[in-house]
Amino acid sequence: MAEERPLMHHPEIQCRVRVARGIDIAVGPGKMELLEAIRDAGSISGGARRMGMSYRRAWMLVETMNSCFAQPLVATSTGGRAGGGAKVTAQGEDVLRIYTAMMADVEAVAQRHLQPLLPSLLSKPAETAGS
Amino acid sequence: MAEERPLMHHPEIQCRVRVARGIDIAVGPGKMELLEAIRDAGSISGGARRMGMSYRRAWMLVETMNSCFAQPLVATSTGGRAGGGAKVTAQGEDVLRIYTAMMADVEAVAQRHLQPLLPSLLSKPAETAGS
Repeated sequence: MAEERPLMHHPEIQCRVRVARGIDIAVGPGKMELLEAIRDAGSISGGARRMGMSYRRAWMLVETMNSCFAQPLVATSTGGRAGGGAKVTAQGEDVLRIYTAMMADVEAVAQRHLQPLLPSLLSKPAETAGS
Repeated sequence: MAEERPLMHHPEIQCRVRVARGIDIAVGPGKMELLEAIRDAGSISGGARRMGMSYRRAWMLVETMNSCFAQPLVATSTGGRAGGGAKVTAQGEDVLRIYTAMMADVEAVAQRHLQPLLPSLLSKPAETAGS
């Protein structure tokens, strides 16, 4: 019969990279996720919905991103029957592509370095009560 | 005469890597800084002072770190005339060394990827008012 094993919390490596310009965050995980959501939805409101955030918050994040770059990352078209849409620009696509590739590399590097530590982290059960 | 240049906020790449185990953060920038401070000060209270945090907070961070690893990262000796000290263990030194090397590599990788974006971030003045 299988021995009862205590519940284990496996260690999780969490990486975050962002680019700040003064008090503004130009590039970061939340903004990049929003950028992808806007691209997929075709509008800021649609992107906001996918992210579960308010339109106002999404709009402000887009404003910050756009104001940090010489070229906007999101271009909006107002008016028209559809109520206006939003499009990720070529610069926006560049930023997304670079950020995604960078994070994959960063995570691989962190994983490679931290790997030797994981066994000593794994060896403790989630509960302090003995097995 | 030199042309007046607008105040520029240079973009800053910020990397954070941590290792979570369930709700506990086993390894992260704050804990690693504290670990170094304790090593240099020779006590938790001295480390806390260098970090500008309360003894209680430093003690709790050490407790969390220690509880996440099979071997403690900080060993404390209580009592004695000096009121007890704290020592970073061999496991603690390993973690510090690995974390420091990992962060140097992560920062280099992030820098290398994000470098092409920096000029378009640099080209905007800090104030929105024209130069």
